[in-house]
Amino acid sequence: MDAVGGLSQVETLIMGLDTLWVLLSAFLVFFMNLGFAMVETGLCRSKNAVNILSKNFIVFAIASLSFWFIGWGLMFGDGNAFVGLTNLFFANGGVDEGFGAISWARVPFWAKFFFQLVFAGTAATIVSGAVAERIKFTSFIVFAFILVAVMYPVTGHWIWGGGWLQNLGFFDFAGSTVVHSVGGWAALAGVMVLGPRHGKYRADGSTVPILGHNMSMVTLGGLVLWFGWFGFNPGSTMAVGDGSAIAHIAVTTNTSAAVAILSSTIASWFLLGRPDLSMIINGALAGLVGITAGCAFVDVGGAAMIGLVSGVLVVFSVLFFDKRKLDDPVGALSVHLMNGMWGTLAVGLFAIDGITGTATGNGLLNGGGFGLLAKQSIGVVSVAGFSFAVALAVWLVLKYTVGIRVTREEELTGLDRSEHASEAYAGFQIID
Amino acid sequence: MDAVGGLSQVETLIMGLDTLWVLLSAFLVFFMNLGFAMVETGLCRSKNAVNILSKNFIVFAIASLSFWFIGWGLMFGDGNAFVGLTNLFFANGGVDEGFGAISWARVPFWAKFFFQLVFAGTAATIVSGAVAERIKFTSFIVFAFILVAVMYPVTGHWIWGGGWLQNLGFFDFAGSTVVHSVGGWAALAGVMVLGPRHGKYRADGSTVPILGHNMSMVTLGGLVLWFGWFGFNPGSTMAVGDGSAIAHIAVTTNTSAAVAILSSTIASWFLLGRPDLSMIINGALAGLVGITAGCAFVDVGGAAMIGLVSGVLVVFSVLFFDKRKLDDPVGALSVHLMNGMWGTLAVGLFAIDGITGTATGNGLLNGGGFGLLAKQSIGVVSVAGFSFAVALAVWLVLKYTVGIRVTREEELTGLDRSEHASEAYAGFQIID
Amino acid sequence: MDAVGGLSQVETLIMGLDTLWVLLSAFLVFFMNLGFAMVETGLCRSKNAVNILSKNFIVFAIASLSFWFIGWGLMFGDGNAFVGLTNLFFANGGVDEGFGAISWARVPFWAKFFFQLVFAGTAATIVSGAVAERIKFTSFIVFAFILVAVMYPVTGHWIWGGGWLQNLGFFDFAGSTVVHSVGGWAALAGVMVLGPRHGKYRADGSTVPILGHNMSMVTLGGLVLWFGWFGFNPGSTMAVGDGSAIAHIAVTTNTSAAVAILSSTIASWFLLGRPDLSMIINGALAGLVGITAGCAFVDVGGAAMIGLVSGVLVVFSVLFFDKRKLDDPVGALSVHLMNGMWGTLAVGLFAIDGITGTATGNGLLNGGGFGLLAKQSIGVVSVAGFSFAVALAVWLVLKYTVGIRVTREEELTGLDRSEHASEAYAGFQIID
Repeated sequence: MDAVGGLSQVETLIMGLDTLWVLLSAFLVFFMNLGFAMVETGLCRSKNAVNILSKNFIVFAIASLSFWFIGWGLMFGDGNAFVGLTNLFFANGGVDEGFGAISWARVPFWAKFFFQLVFAGTAATIVSGAVAERIKFTSFIVFAFILVAVMYPVTGHWIWGGGWLQNLGFFDFAGSTVVHSVGGWAALAGVMVLGPRHGKYRADGSTVPILGHNMSMVTLGGLVLWFGWFGFNPGSTMAVGDGSAIAHIAVTTNTSAAVAILSSTIASWFLLGRPDLSMIINGALAGLVGITAGCAFVDVGGAAMIGLVSGVLVVFSVLFFDKRKLDDPVGALSVHLMNGMWGTLAVGLFAIDGITGTATGNGLLNGGGFGLLAKQSIGVVSVAGFSFAVALAVWLVLKYTVGIRVTREEELTGLDRSEHASEAYAGFQIID
Repeated sequence: MDAVGGLSQVETLIMGLDTLWVLLSAFLVFFMNLGFAMVETGLCRSKNAVNILSKNFIVFAIASLSFWFIGWGLMFGDGNAFVGLTNLFFANGGVDEGFGAISWARVPFWAKFFFQLVFAGTAATIVSGAVAERIKFTSFIVFAFILVAVMYPVTGHWIWGGGWLQNLGFFDFAGSTVVHSVGGWAALAGVMVLGPRHGKYRADGSTVPILGHNMSMVTLGGLVLWFGWFGFNPGSTMAVGDGSAIAHIAVTTNTSAAVAILSSTIASWFLLGRPDLSMIINGALAGLVGITAGCAFVDVGGAAMIGLVSGVLVVFSVLFFDKRKLDDPVGALSVHLMNGMWGTLAVGLFAIDGITGTATGNGLLNGGGFGLLAKQSIGVVSVAGFSFAVALAVWLVLKYTVGIRVTREEELTGLDRSEHASEAYAGFQIID
Repeated sequence: MDAVGGLSQVETLIMGLDTLWVLLSAFLVFFMNLGFAMVETGLCRSKNAVNILSKNFIVFAIASLSFWFIGWGLMFGDGNAFVGLTNLFFANGGVDEGFGAISWARVPFWAKFFFQLVFAGTAATIVSGAVAERIKFTSFIVFAFILVAVMYPVTGHWIWGGGWLQNLGFFDFAGSTVVHSVGGWAALAGVMVLGPRHGKYRADGSTVPILGHNMSMVTLGGLVLWFGWFGFNPGSTMAVGDGSAIAHIAVTTNTSAAVAILSSTIASWFLLGRPDLSMIINGALAGLVGITAGCAFVDVGGAAMIGLVSGVLVVFSVLFFDKRKLDDPVGALSVHLMNGMWGTLAVGLFAIDGITGTATGNGLLNGGGFGLLAKQSIGVVSVAGFSFAVALAVWLVLKYTVGIRVTREEELTGLDRSEHASEAYAGFQIID
């Protein structure tokens, strides 16, 4: 290998090593699409499996195109405090200027683009689970396109693209807010506009459990997501350095998940009288979402504390949303929305001064404290307001134009037959 | 780390980084065995699941041994325009000379060997799906051994091993022809010699749909293949450099897949009246096969065009093969053969001058044009002639010696009982 | 990137590259949790699926905490010949001293910790399969905690932590003994104390086959484990160097698996009259366990010999344990215990002088021979004695305090209903 483009051999090596890390991390995050597909499909009924699998498969294709078309430019283009305005359309590897907010990552343009794309895709996938078993296929596709094209990039610009929250000193290392809460608010708006599945809540307000059709798939999905998170969080360094930051982040990430598994198991044992597998798995995911904002800023003890709360929070949250008759078949709101908020606030509680020396868009974080907690709260609230309001508007427009919900008959028959003229498990005897 | 074997510390680092990349890519390509196993098994009936899983599990073991025994030497050994002749038997890490055509990759011998092995294994796996549900277990194993030992390496030598097509200026970056078309031609010959499954075509020529037994598995397999392709295509650089080539290739690869998903979805919606999940997934795979030859030579817009055609081509191709009564239970011919050819020709249509500066066996590609298109066509046709003719001969010899098809009774019973005295889903109620 | 902490830019690069490799390998080994979960669950009955999935999901959380709490310190802390005594509690990234035995790995503390953690987790997971379908959920969790907190670290200290076997010149490159045999002995003790599942053995001593409920899951798990082993074995270099050692190990690992698949297939065909899929998959795993100790010390031919024996050994071993009425639903004893021992002894038979130049805790291995074989035997026997005795004691204490086996009624009903008030496949018709 010769030195490339004016770089010394060693500088070329550093850039190559960093690019390798960013891309491998992106591949892992891409793989999370499998995790989401399996968790969501397994937790729903077999009569809707083809539909959910189709949504989950196609959603990353949609995200790939809408982020290329406009999302990247709105998020990372140089612009004002609210939105990017430079090189808006069709992200182009030949134009590496005009993206000042992410110039700290010294890897080639397409590596930055692809890494950010897989994050955007994750936000869209989160919505999929919450609206499952009753949403129209085409309406979901349109919503996902708009989410990745416009909604996600705008709040992303505020936090990672040089916007007002970044300038305020709001910290979200790998996206508890940018990805998970944003996906969660979009999902909540969808759940509210759609209404619950037929038969989910009785007239007296009590809940009818609707069991998932394949817990092996759900477990598979949960482990794939945990695996993929080792790209999501450590990969957000977008650089290797001497490796100490990525090693640190791998351990904080894993520790939060591990503790959250135990605390969700115990919480579900107390509240439900048994170790519930879906609660155990959602506990892991809650711990992972919870540590995402602070993984680079807290020590392993702090990560354990964050996970402890996450695991309990997700169990109570699932029960809470059911009490409010907000029907979320897979617990996406409890995992991504509630723990996205918790994880973001937790940075203010547990951050420790200069713990990893990790570069980010807004420099090093110098410890937590009340001032930081206030800033984190401002971020949580403002992203909530924007994301929920815009998502609600988009869902309502869709509802009163193309419609967003299948008919009662289609829902009872199952979306596989009504939307896809297909079935997931031909030959197997299945009772409704 | 001290400098190794006369290399400077920096040269050792470069070699280490490149080796890491080649091996990690190879692991990802190895993982595609899981993708193929799940797609093929899920698209077939449950009564043949154990048989298909067994074939897919054992085929990489066969490939590992036959490529070690003779395949590597025939493909990469120094030789004449048609075949390698140096160090033919038992690839040996101690002998790194005599493989001039792959000396451009500056990684240790076993890294080159392992990377090439997983590609050879892929070609063998492609055949598996097309001949499923009626082939004899042992005959498939023998065919796979011969394919990886002799057939794949010979055309591979023409294109990547210093043979006549490489010298002509034929370009196939990651194997649209070398891997996918070759596997596809071998599969087509098998399909023709075997004949269709009982009950697949009615006397009046119309087709009886035979539904796959588990679309969750198929989706899982499709996402695993997409994931693995990030090793297949970007890994074919066999070097990291400053990372810009591998980042570029990751994005062209993903973009082609994404556009192909949308075009196959729309095409199936028009032609079949519904968004068919197996068409959506085969659309993704078609886009991935289509971009494989040109991923390093086209820009992202070109990749989108290639994917657009791939997604439509695969849908029409599935219908075409059924009309010709060529029974391919999983669509392998449409994905690998048709799109392998399309992707190879597309290099001539969309290549752009010096786009990534990626090293390959035959240097940089300087743009496309009619001359290149003609060379690409020569390659497509000559590989077709050799691969199909030899595969046909091998299948016929097998047919008239050991036999290649199970009896009608065994086929109706299912191969799991008749060949393995087993069942895949003990306890589940299944109706034939 | 600037040089970090007194290191030159090149030294920082080396450390970064090595850390990247160690972490990516650790992620792959973590992913093996999915492989174990799918293999074990698929080979058991659907009425116990939720229980087995729950155990496999929670076990890595338990391991993460117990290894952090005390296991790491006992294993790698400076101490005497039998146990570590320095920095015992709560592994701490800020304290990188006091772990002399692993100072040869020049990566950050948390990278070492995380890599070693995923190995410890593997040992605990091995136990899970052997005791499946009748163990109490809580008792398994307590046993797994003790295993990773104390039992695994003590023998680990002997071999990798500066203890007496390491000083003797006992070699176990990636853990045939440290991980697999230790897990296997703990499993054997559990199987003996638990007794067989109801209905497994008839009064006349003959065996009733209990079929697994999903061979697709088993195959998926087998391929995931094979994939993960490319982190397990090559990753145990904990350094990249010029890449030649990791490339060599990838190929010896794969070759042993490939040959073992063929030898187990042939052995099962002779003994059982058919190519049995569970034997084929266990053959692969046997070959992987068998090569784990020697992967860096043998050449590819030696790896093939090791795999040849492994594949036959696993088939005979499964039949042997059934004859002894030691009921191991998934074959864990045959795979991990028997082949862990075989692989460790095989180092003495097939090691070749200075084959890769790979650094390990006790330096280079200079060939095999009778002296080495004797030392390997001492290690196998002494680890057997300690691991089995302590595990037996722990199981017995658990048995006579909290109890380790569910009631006959609970077992017949299935653990999913009795322990989790749940079911894995809601809607599917299943006959017991």
